[in-house]
Amino acid sequence: MPGRMNVLIPDLPAFRSLAVPGVTFTPYGPEGASAAVADGVVLWGVRREHLSALLRTPGLQWALTLTAGVNHVTPHLPEHVTLYNASALHENAVAQHATATILAAARGLHRARDAQREGVWRPERNLWTLDDRSVVIWGMGHIGRRLARHLEVLGARVTGLTSGSAVGEVDEALAGADVLVLLLPSTPDTRGLVGESVLARLSAGAWVANYGRGDLIVTDALVAALQGGHLGGAILDVTDPEPLPPGHALWALENVILTPHTAGTTADVAERGAAYAQRVVAALAAGEDVPGRVDLSRGY
Amino acid sequence: MPGRMNVLIPDLPAFRSLAVPGVTFTPYGPEGASAAVADGVVLWGVRREHLSALLRTPGLQWALTLTAGVNHVTPHLPEHVTLYNASALHENAVAQHATATILAAARGLHRARDAQREGVWRPERNLWTLDDRSVVIWGMGHIGRRLARHLEVLGARVTGLTSGSAVGEVDEALAGADVLVLLLPSTPDTRGLVGESVLARLSAGAWVANYGRGDLIVTDALVAALQGGHLGGAILDVTDPEPLPPGHALWALENVILTPHTAGTTADVAERGAAYAQRVVAALAAGEDVPGRVDLSRGY
Repeated sequence: MPGRMNVLIPDLPAFRSLAVPGVTFTPYGPEGASAAVADGVVLWGVRREHLSALLRTPGLQWALTLTAGVNHVTPHLPEHVTLYNASALHENAVAQHATATILAAARGLHRARDAQREGVWRPERNLWTLDDRSVVIWGMGHIGRRLARHLEVLGARVTGLTSGSAVGEVDEALAGADVLVLLLPSTPDTRGLVGESVLARLSAGAWVANYGRGDLIVTDALVAALQGGHLGGAILDVTDPEPLPPGHALWALENVILTPHTAGTTADVAERGAAYAQRVVAALAAGEDVPGRVDLSRGY
Repeated sequence: MPGRMNVLIPDLPAFRSLAVPGVTFTPYGPEGASAAVADGVVLWGVRREHLSALLRTPGLQWALTLTAGVNHVTPHLPEHVTLYNASALHENAVAQHATATILAAARGLHRARDAQREGVWRPERNLWTLDDRSVVIWGMGHIGRRLARHLEVLGARVTGLTSGSAVGEVDEALAGADVLVLLLPSTPDTRGLVGESVLARLSAGAWVANYGRGDLIVTDALVAALQGGHLGGAILDVTDPEPLPPGHALWALENVILTPHTAGTTADVAERGAAYAQRVVAALAAGEDVPGRVDLSRGY
């Protein structure tokens, strides 16, 4: 890439030490850009209403979002701007969060916490382990494959599905699943994928776990399946609507394990994000290939 | 072993199908034995006040407790009776429960549950993963080694200690630990092992996790270290006193993850226990070696 490259970065402490030869970094605040021109932008913590202006900075050729999902960015993305996501940055935390919450369901940690907060010693018998349990992971990207390794060490039998799996393969996997894990992106093909029909095909007592995007699941159908007792429970790191509004039916269900879209969060995520951005910008400046290029025709 | 063997078993549905050639099984109720004589007894769900009489059944040569710990049995054990424990029966569940609760601490699942029960969407940033964390496992028997494998797949650096580790080795391990896991049995040497001095040697923010026996920890010292903010938190599957009485200081501490001695529990534990007993009795009847023989000089 000829000439000096100008890159917009978040105005946050973790990003102040970024340095790449031949690159000028210019901070933007939460309100968006002030620079007249730029070649690229690193997106992190930008308010939705400022994304469009930031992405229309004159000269912009690429944007790197430090998130795994991109559907908050794509509606604002000009056609000529190449988008990169940062799945690799969140792989480890999401896979560990998924392992944590699935094990929490098996070991009844949600009910144990409720008893603890009541101040009552209440042992229960209806606990299980992942040994010899069938887990279906729908969405076998980097996170899915890493999660599969974690669960297999715990004795689980893991079946992987993709958004392109054939209907027969999906049906067979669902029928035997003890846990159905969703790690798919939100695209026109996957929205509402898990509705009444998929939920009914799961065997009684199965758990559904969603770490992808809230709208993969038809929320009303999930609430009905939980209230009707067909499912063992649900693990939701993402919801639709999100954030879950006060008084929503999901809050009242004891056998829901809810985490507020924190699967990818670690205390050092800004520092890790800055280090990741540094590597990507250095690669782009050197004209090298960069992982995470989003195929807009697929939407992820 | 010559002649027909008579074995006392719990009067529970799971044990009714036990059958071993040359062995007569006689059920006892929760109040203890009624048989005049017996060669062996399988202990499960016997009330403390009935243990002594059961273990003094005329002719008794061995007792198999379907628990991992034995310190509830040993005070009542006549000298001539050989005791076997059933660690192997609980290995998998305890190792998975330990993995579950340590991951729950890292991913803040206890605080997420509190926010959920309040009906509030409250993402937090202070989360971590086991990647590159130092975990010290004090008690490297079957469960400890299995737990180490689980945690290593999640990226943890695991150091094992035993009840016989040298002081210098212990000090060095404690100083660098992010999580200290206790899996030791309760013996005169291990009671009160983790008191003020061990807790002070842990670095600020470290977690202590006990799946061994409650009295390994000096409870008052633990409460003080938690209230003083030195520890990140504590995971307790066992407590001293146990059960934890109403109003105890530990109930009020938000950064305690408490499970009521359920680490070894699974819905099918009675069935698994009966199957285990069948294998052990068959081996004893054939004069073969049996795992889990308790060395009373060591106390486990």
